[in-house]
Amino acid sequence: MQISKGVEWAVHAASMMAALPEGRGLKAAALAHYHGVPTAYMAKQLQALSKAGIVQSSRGAHGGYRLAKPATDISLWDITAAIEGHGPAFRCTEIRQNGPCGLKRKDCKRPCQIAAAFSSAERAFRDSLKAVTLAHIGLQVVRDSEPEHLSDIMHWLESEVMPLSDTP
Amino acid sequence: MQISKGVEWAVHAASMMAALPEGRGLKAAALAHYHGVPTAYMAKQLQALSKAGIVQSSRGAHGGYRLAKPATDISLWDITAAIEGHGPAFRCTEIRQNGPCGLKRKDCKRPCQIAAAFSSAERAFRDSLKAVTLAHIGLQVVRDSEPEHLSDIMHWLESEVMPLSDTP
Repeated sequence: MQISKGVEWAVHAASMMAALPEGRGLKAAALAHYHGVPTAYMAKQLQALSKAGIVQSSRGAHGGYRLAKPATDISLWDITAAIEGHGPAFRCTEIRQNGPCGLKRKDCKRPCQIAAAFSSAERAFRDSLKAVTLAHIGLQVVRDSEPEHLSDIMHWLESEVMPLSDTP
Repeated sequence: MQISKGVEWAVHAASMMAALPEGRGLKAAALAHYHGVPTAYMAKQLQALSKAGIVQSSRGAHGGYRLAKPATDISLWDITAAIEGHGPAFRCTEIRQNGPCGLKRKDCKRPCQIAAAFSSAERAFRDSLKAVTLAHIGLQVVRDSEPEHLSDIMHWLESEVMPLSDTP
């Protein structure tokens, strides 16, 4: 069971976007450079976030990305689901219907108890990530960081941030 | 994020083994046939369960598998970890140390807040699966099944069950 690197990159990029002033954005290349990862792969994650309505992009000379809603409204689950999909991790193939004692489909009204147990565990995982928003992450980073490091980040942001047109 | 089919198969096979009388076992081929899945792939899952100390096998003419400990002591997490490994699903690659504002390694004493949030969500997932043992699954199957279905299962078991020698 693995969560792709894309989720890590997307959460870091979105956390950075949470620090942007209103109406400003960052290019995919800047977000990739900041995180030391390839631009093409970072762009792929940003497109997935865009498709999920988590970020907005504007094209052209001033093309860039910003969050599409407040950081308090974007959870780590939203980002994980945007990159990995909403489907269950445990996919019940109804093997209880197989073999010499297989149940008839019509008799399988309730989910298999094994699938139900995994479904419940996945709900616990999801609920835990839903409780953590980009606002929480941002606050924790500010609280845990040395002032010099925060100052480095703000200087970098100032040099890379760009105005964004409202037309995507 | 996906959990392999092997986990589904292994949990079903282990639940079946929980119904075996003391000192009796089932061949990998019988467990595969019962669940309508290929023997080679079922055998692979059983080997992983054996390596994790969840099942015992005896070789030779009487070769077969049985649980290595009571069904009350085997959780769905034990089986999941035996098949998928114990490693975290979210693998932090410390991208906070990358790029123009990267932190120095020596300043990263605390885990990244993003990795910590995923670690906490995975703990919730794990704890949920740890709370469900093969004994719970067995009880629920008995409670939810029609008497005819249970009778079919017991007849099948009687025809396939075999004595197991104690020497693995």
